[in-house]
Amino acid sequence: VKYPIGNEMHSWACDLFPICRSITGDGVRKTLNYIKNLLPSLTVHEVSSGTKAFDWTVPDEWNIRDAYVEDENGDRIIDFKQHNLHVVSYSEPVDVWLSLEELDKRLYSLPDQPNAIPYVSSYYKRWWGFCLTHQQRLKLKPGKYHAVIDSSLKPGSLSYGELILPGTEEKEVLLSTYICHPSMGNNELSGPVVTTALARWLLNLDERRYTYRIVFVPETIGSIVYLSRNLEIMKKNTVAGFVVTCIGDDRSYSFSHSPWGDTLADRVAQHVLKHHAPNYFNYYFWEKGGSDERQYCSPNVRLPVVSVMRSRYGTYPEYHTSLDDLSFITSSGLEGGYEALRKCLIVLENNRYYKVPFPCEPQMGKRGLKPLLSLKNTEQPSTMMRLLNYLDGEHDLLQVCDQIGRFIIDCIPIVNKLLDEKLLVKKYGG
Amino acid sequence: VKYPIGNEMHSWACDLFPICRSITGDGVRKTLNYIKNLLPSLTVHEVSSGTKAFDWTVPDEWNIRDAYVEDENGDRIIDFKQHNLHVVSYSEPVDVWLSLEELDKRLYSLPDQPNAIPYVSSYYKRWWGFCLTHQQRLKLKPGKYHAVIDSSLKPGSLSYGELILPGTEEKEVLLSTYICHPSMGNNELSGPVVTTALARWLLNLDERRYTYRIVFVPETIGSIVYLSRNLEIMKKNTVAGFVVTCIGDDRSYSFSHSPWGDTLADRVAQHVLKHHAPNYFNYYFWEKGGSDERQYCSPNVRLPVVSVMRSRYGTYPEYHTSLDDLSFITSSGLEGGYEALRKCLIVLENNRYYKVPFPCEPQMGKRGLKPLLSLKNTEQPSTMMRLLNYLDGEHDLLQVCDQIGRFIIDCIPIVNKLLDEKLLVKKYGG
Amino acid sequence: VKYPIGNEMHSWACDLFPICRSITGDGVRKTLNYIKNLLPSLTVHEVSSGTKAFDWTVPDEWNIRDAYVEDENGDRIIDFKQHNLHVVSYSEPVDVWLSLEELDKRLYSLPDQPNAIPYVSSYYKRWWGFCLTHQQRLKLKPGKYHAVIDSSLKPGSLSYGELILPGTEEKEVLLSTYICHPSMGNNELSGPVVTTALARWLLNLDERRYTYRIVFVPETIGSIVYLSRNLEIMKKNTVAGFVVTCIGDDRSYSFSHSPWGDTLADRVAQHVLKHHAPNYFNYYFWEKGGSDERQYCSPNVRLPVVSVMRSRYGTYPEYHTSLDDLSFITSSGLEGGYEALRKCLIVLENNRYYKVPFPCEPQMGKRGLKPLLSLKNTEQPSTMMRLLNYLDGEHDLLQVCDQIGRFIIDCIPIVNKLLDEKLLVKKYGG
Repeated sequence: VKYPIGNEMHSWACDLFPICRSITGDGVRKTLNYIKNLLPSLTVHEVSSGTKAFDWTVPDEWNIRDAYVEDENGDRIIDFKQHNLHVVSYSEPVDVWLSLEELDKRLYSLPDQPNAIPYVSSYYKRWWGFCLTHQQRLKLKPGKYHAVIDSSLKPGSLSYGELILPGTEEKEVLLSTYICHPSMGNNELSGPVVTTALARWLLNLDERRYTYRIVFVPETIGSIVYLSRNLEIMKKNTVAGFVVTCIGDDRSYSFSHSPWGDTLADRVAQHVLKHHAPNYFNYYFWEKGGSDERQYCSPNVRLPVVSVMRSRYGTYPEYHTSLDDLSFITSSGLEGGYEALRKCLIVLENNRYYKVPFPCEPQMGKRGLKPLLSLKNTEQPSTMMRLLNYLDGEHDLLQVCDQIGRFIIDCIPIVNKLLDEKLLVKKYGG
Repeated sequence: VKYPIGNEMHSWACDLFPICRSITGDGVRKTLNYIKNLLPSLTVHEVSSGTKAFDWTVPDEWNIRDAYVEDENGDRIIDFKQHNLHVVSYSEPVDVWLSLEELDKRLYSLPDQPNAIPYVSSYYKRWWGFCLTHQQRLKLKPGKYHAVIDSSLKPGSLSYGELILPGTEEKEVLLSTYICHPSMGNNELSGPVVTTALARWLLNLDERRYTYRIVFVPETIGSIVYLSRNLEIMKKNTVAGFVVTCIGDDRSYSFSHSPWGDTLADRVAQHVLKHHAPNYFNYYFWEKGGSDERQYCSPNVRLPVVSVMRSRYGTYPEYHTSLDDLSFITSSGLEGGYEALRKCLIVLENNRYYKVPFPCEPQMGKRGLKPLLSLKNTEQPSTMMRLLNYLDGEHDLLQVCDQIGRFIIDCIPIVNKLLDEKLLVKKYGG
Repeated sequence: VKYPIGNEMHSWACDLFPICRSITGDGVRKTLNYIKNLLPSLTVHEVSSGTKAFDWTVPDEWNIRDAYVEDENGDRIIDFKQHNLHVVSYSEPVDVWLSLEELDKRLYSLPDQPNAIPYVSSYYKRWWGFCLTHQQRLKLKPGKYHAVIDSSLKPGSLSYGELILPGTEEKEVLLSTYICHPSMGNNELSGPVVTTALARWLLNLDERRYTYRIVFVPETIGSIVYLSRNLEIMKKNTVAGFVVTCIGDDRSYSFSHSPWGDTLADRVAQHVLKHHAPNYFNYYFWEKGGSDERQYCSPNVRLPVVSVMRSRYGTYPEYHTSLDDLSFITSSGLEGGYEALRKCLIVLENNRYYKVPFPCEPQMGKRGLKPLLSLKNTEQPSTMMRLLNYLDGEHDLLQVCDQIGRFIIDCIPIVNKLLDEKLLVKKYGG
């Protein structure tokens, strides 16, 4: 199998695809329960409607059982059961007959993408509506239509999942993904399945240096609620964080930096992408809208959070439509994105200040680390020698690798060899 | 009227043009009195000849009534009354007959610009001479000539004008222009008329944050004398300053930075010019000679002073000749220069540290600042949202606008709206 | 004579060429004695075999009297007396008959450079061998060969030369060169002869600001031993240092910076090379192997040491072969390299913080430093005026020259003139 983890992640996405998620409701709970089967230590939290979170309030909970538009003949011409994008997310319940003119004010389609159902939501304004392909819409004839949405909007709770994996240090790395979009692939399921796979990899490590805070939240309101409950500890401990989204297609890699681009997370992600996917696209913070890093990086929060993605939301035509489906994300796409993020975590775990413990260079020959006979040689110095002469306890391994033009992932085994030989010692930072 | 302020400034220049100015004397006083009519709160200071100012001494005062060269027939072949550039500025009195050979040693013309009278001065060495076009000079025939300069050079005083407009803060902005060149347009009158118009605009503001120190001085000796009397308070309070000169033609915009290019004045002027006149020329400090910023930026003074200009002295052929006349400066040229400087002052008044007063982003929808229905949207985030997420109390508005690629002039109304909505608070710096 | 110092240096190289140097032994002593004749104040130090120096140990001393391979007819087919590169440096004694197959395991040649004898050494592993041209090697016929190396390898000492030239300041400049390669030109003798000439120039100066520490050591083990004896004072006092090597050919100039490229030595050398040899090659620290700067810049030493070279080791085909001979280095090549380094030392001696002693610019006219009559003038300001306005006591002369785009070597006489006129004062740093 070429992409064993990619295949596994894709199968999870297939299982999760049909669930109708939103920012609250049973779709979120079903999604979290599926993930809890894969990550038994996941904790699911419920936050009551009406709870204040900074400038925001947790809204009423939304659930939906059925929704359709039928014509005078009783034929369902728009049917939620065929695709959950057909209903505007958070639609209030309705059961009404209307003319085509009246119905038309409640319909959403994309003239430029006539075969795509768009994704529309109205979380904070009571509204109802249906989404359909523009091809469908053009076929609608004058007449009477019966619009039915069997939904409920009432006090309940907002659900999110949280997994804390303790490390030898109190300092934390944040992984945050969202679980609030209905049936879409790259801009929804790629995030939770890659995050789940990363969590399982972290759980299997013999030792973790950092504590990992892994959260599955509805976008925006979920990260705001989460921050309102955990801001102090996260500001104290977070060394780097990643919003995991749009990480499953095969077209490109992309990156969006923190507001000022100067955090450890920025350095790590840019170093990894430079070597893992040199043609990656560099987006500024918030370009094309931004995701939960808008909250994590907001002025009074300012956590060192970036986003490493495949094709970024807002940049591909399938985005926020039914075309962003299970074929848009692939096993190789998911595995490539997973690997990019896994390498970021490996770098974080290994990035320290090291130093040779005595003046001048070590005599490598007597340790069998260099040929003893000196021939005419115009080769470049080995990476081992370059690391020894740049690791000075004042620049971290990442800075040194950037300076000597090597991928830190390739240097970590060499550093470990030098630690074994007692030719390097850890300086601090663990 | 297309350039109402430009027209007004040009009419002032026309009135001031005929006056024979120099670094001292009644020409300066007449010029200052004209400006005092426009700015009644202007104070005119007199500093006695012989007064020490750092390494310099105020010279004797120079006044001139008439000057000419006539030939044996009594025909005036060079006549100060026709153009005051015909006499070397600060010429000592003379009344002598001489041969063409002798006269020739006292004549100045420009072979490369045969129809231009050059501008020549000799402030610190007793001398006399006449300037004329090279065409005139070539026509002179051997013979006797009568050279007469009816001038006086004796103890008197150096005159300068000063206007202090108090603001709510003690901190000051400096505007400095010079009033010592005879009948020339861009490299003389554009400076005082644009400075006068800026002062009148400042006087009409409802509120001024900064105190404005506006000075009309003879170049070099005047700014040195002024600094010798005001150095302490200017070093304590000046946040930014501008030497206003060569600001009236239509050919180009230009900028000269402070010695190390790192002051608030540099940042403000470069930001404004980048958006106001993106093709502006960037000169280094002192390139083509420099003006009074040489004194304001000198090592023991080091005020944050720059110069925003149209065509810089030394770069256009008409410079320092009779061709730099009232047609070289235009209403549109003056108004464009005035606008560039006015924008610099607006930026200074509004550049502060702001911050959203709570964690995470505000809920814009409930305030009607964002549509409540979320459609498929690949547009860029609004400037309002970008400002909210970058204004963090640690970077000033100018840094934020540079980072997000917006003209600060366009952002100020948005910031004011956010202040009204209590979504931003002023941090400090007023 | 076009290159008087270059000629002299080349003649010293001719004298030193035949000596068989290695990292220890009489070849080093003969070389140091020759230099002591030119620099009588040179001190020669001996460090016993077995002495510890950080991670290293001084090896046994090696001396060689003769070495050859003869065939069954007694014809010497490889002869140390013809070229001392013919024997592997540090070869143990041997006297043995062997077949061509056996002999072949002890032979070193370069198929790609068939007319070059390579340079091979084995300091830390007991071994013996012969080097020859590949042309020679191809002519060898099956048969018996008599290999004889009349060498000794036994406890003795490592020799190095040291010359301390006191200055008015305790702060030091380091010049380090090596004296351990046998008969080669650029990558051996150019270093000691240029260093010797620089030392003689320094000795003849009326006054030296800095103390000069000039060392002639065997490469690697010599600089390590030297550092083990002088580390504390060198860390305390060294302001800049230069490894002098590969400084005698005519092909190019090159530079290798310190590990992080941010020391005074880096700034000085890059400024000088930019003006002295603008097309110089810029190598990173350790590129192509590095020399003694590997020790001087090692993490627990971190002296500000760089290398200014002509064609860098490892970059030219003659490197480490018999082709790097007395014709590869030239009088003009040596003199050009000497001049580049001498300029670096002049810059170090003169680089200070200066400042005009009063506010505003000096009145140059009254001192005869500027014409008193002001004509139309579009020329650039003089270097003198620019220096006066940039030297502010906070940026050193080198920073100012970089900022105003002038070669500091051309500015030093102007600075001295301004010091004489009391228009500049030294601020600190001497």
